[in-house]
Amino acid sequence: MERSADVKPSDIAGRLGRLRPRLSDAGCEALLVTNLVNLRYLTGFTGSAGLLLVLSDEVVLTTDGRYRDQAAEQLAAAGVEARIEVRPTLGAQQEVLASAARQIKRLGLEAESVTWAQQRRFASDAFADAELVPTEGVVEHLRRVKDAGEIDRMAEAARIADAALAAVVPLLGQGVTEREVALGLDYEMRRLGAEGSSFETIVASGPNGAKPHARPTDRRVQPGELVVIDFGARVDGYCSDMTRTFCVGEPDDTALRMVSVVKESQREGVAAVKAGVRGSEVDQTCRAVIADAGWGEAFIHGTGHGVGLEIHEAPRVGSTSDDVLAPGHVVTVEPGVYLAEHGGVRIEDTVVVTEDGCTVLTNAPKESIV
Amino acid sequence: MERSADVKPSDIAGRLGRLRPRLSDAGCEALLVTNLVNLRYLTGFTGSAGLLLVLSDEVVLTTDGRYRDQAAEQLAAAGVEARIEVRPTLGAQQEVLASAARQIKRLGLEAESVTWAQQRRFASDAFADAELVPTEGVVEHLRRVKDAGEIDRMAEAARIADAALAAVVPLLGQGVTEREVALGLDYEMRRLGAEGSSFETIVASGPNGAKPHARPTDRRVQPGELVVIDFGARVDGYCSDMTRTFCVGEPDDTALRMVSVVKESQREGVAAVKAGVRGSEVDQTCRAVIADAGWGEAFIHGTGHGVGLEIHEAPRVGSTSDDVLAPGHVVTVEPGVYLAEHGGVRIEDTVVVTEDGCTVLTNAPKESIV
Repeated sequence: MERSADVKPSDIAGRLGRLRPRLSDAGCEALLVTNLVNLRYLTGFTGSAGLLLVLSDEVVLTTDGRYRDQAAEQLAAAGVEARIEVRPTLGAQQEVLASAARQIKRLGLEAESVTWAQQRRFASDAFADAELVPTEGVVEHLRRVKDAGEIDRMAEAARIADAALAAVVPLLGQGVTEREVALGLDYEMRRLGAEGSSFETIVASGPNGAKPHARPTDRRVQPGELVVIDFGARVDGYCSDMTRTFCVGEPDDTALRMVSVVKESQREGVAAVKAGVRGSEVDQTCRAVIADAGWGEAFIHGTGHGVGLEIHEAPRVGSTSDDVLAPGHVVTVEPGVYLAEHGGVRIEDTVVVTEDGCTVLTNAPKESIV
Repeated sequence: MERSADVKPSDIAGRLGRLRPRLSDAGCEALLVTNLVNLRYLTGFTGSAGLLLVLSDEVVLTTDGRYRDQAAEQLAAAGVEARIEVRPTLGAQQEVLASAARQIKRLGLEAESVTWAQQRRFASDAFADAELVPTEGVVEHLRRVKDAGEIDRMAEAARIADAALAAVVPLLGQGVTEREVALGLDYEMRRLGAEGSSFETIVASGPNGAKPHARPTDRRVQPGELVVIDFGARVDGYCSDMTRTFCVGEPDDTALRMVSVVKESQREGVAAVKAGVRGSEVDQTCRAVIADAGWGEAFIHGTGHGVGLEIHEAPRVGSTSDDVLAPGHVVTVEPGVYLAEHGGVRIEDTVVVTEDGCTVLTNAPKESIV
């Protein structure tokens, strides 16, 4: 599958401008970005090592010699203006940053990703004269709203996953193992242009399906059993996420009813998504349908989560989520029912929130009988 | 490829006993293990969430409901005696641990993996009455020496990688892209029984080979070019690591000489490995051969690294490494020469250190002309 010609560019260059006003709310004058996903989001740089110092009047990226050319090329391509300083060791990189931040009294550090050892080194050495302020979710908050380029990439990832599933579903009736199905999906997604899978593919048949996060085994899919398949593709770092549940041959009445209830729950959950709605409301909508069917206790996880450069990110879509959905948020809706004797049913789409509702990115058919 | 019948069990149950005497050296009475690789090493538990408290007279593992059965099964299979406490939230898990550690005055925290946010929560809440002591490399130090079961798994991973390479090498002459070769290797390794690749497979042809960590592109391998292939398989969590360099058709004289020099450097490096030798001595042995050929400046990385549950772990095998090799250490020997006009040559084996030398785990032929 060739990349669709109309994938829009992402507006990477505008992100630092949207970050700066948030720093004072976070109690700091400048932010040292250590989380590589956030660093990529802000600059376009995809290297495996780097530190980004965001000051009010300057941005400094340090990395090592492996990424000299790549850092310059990626920041230029994104239109991001930053001083790039290449140093062989972390110590030498810290010296550069310390010099750039010498006027800073309150320096933010991303507390959820910086290790305690890094923080201690920063505190005792490079930034000994500043107060280090623990910040949480500052860049992640910006990442919730996707621009057109980000949505195009996620749509592309979803299309690849749809096509991979269509290629692999016919195998289900041929006595394959869970592991073979998972390998087939992972292979097809890369063959079709994905960088890889967005997480470890779940293929859970029969009793294994009763565990929402089962890992694929050498168990062969048996006629009459439910098979939960939960997977996604990654394109330019952006993830898709989709679950479909199949039955090879004739399901029994309970299985048929599980499928029907979860389908209805998921349909109503998607219909409830629009700007201004809380994550907890979408969760409640899905949960009510399943509770009405008498299986409230068998829906043992939250309804969904945000998706983007990470497979799980803000906003949350669970019973305790006060996050209010806004246009450009991308979230999953994935209710499920899990019964030890019958296995599991889960159906999941990834959707983009709009003013009036949402746009579904994952379009594989929900017909469950193979 | 069926798992070889003679894979020995690992001695997981003995590890906690070897850890405990190290705690006082690290300045603490007890250790809270947050690094999931270390937690797996000490208990056999492979879940994606858990905390392990190692006290002098008790061991407590906390995790959430997803892993209730799995934790009990894996610890029992490993013969590890620990109290397993399942709680839905991290907060509730911390309460259990705080209660178990209430007599502890100095509690070790793994500073290189615990986040600053976690450490702050521990310090202000669950362990407010204890002094939190930053530790580094305490469990990692034990992990350096592999037991027979661990070596069997790494040998199995290496055999799978050997077989995958043999299946894929014939493609090189057929105008394939780097990405197609990488996908072929990753697919074959899983088909042959690996859990996956031990890191992102490197296939770097022509000029791309001059970058040691190039990522596979859509570039087609051209006749006469060098192609660096660096990859590994993962079995029961254990990694293999191997690099071979190929030339499709007739290489030019410089390329031939690069291959010959690196092969000799790598052979001498492997010959230098034995118990009692420092990592820096192995590095120096490899480097001398390449320097004698006039390419000292073109060998732009360290000679190797330890391998195990992580693809890069202790001991180090570089110019500044004082780590002394010991029986059971598993390290790579991987010198290379990188020239912008000619591309790269790297040859790498994974070897097990013995009293008198080493045992090579990666046995794919080093013939480079396809």
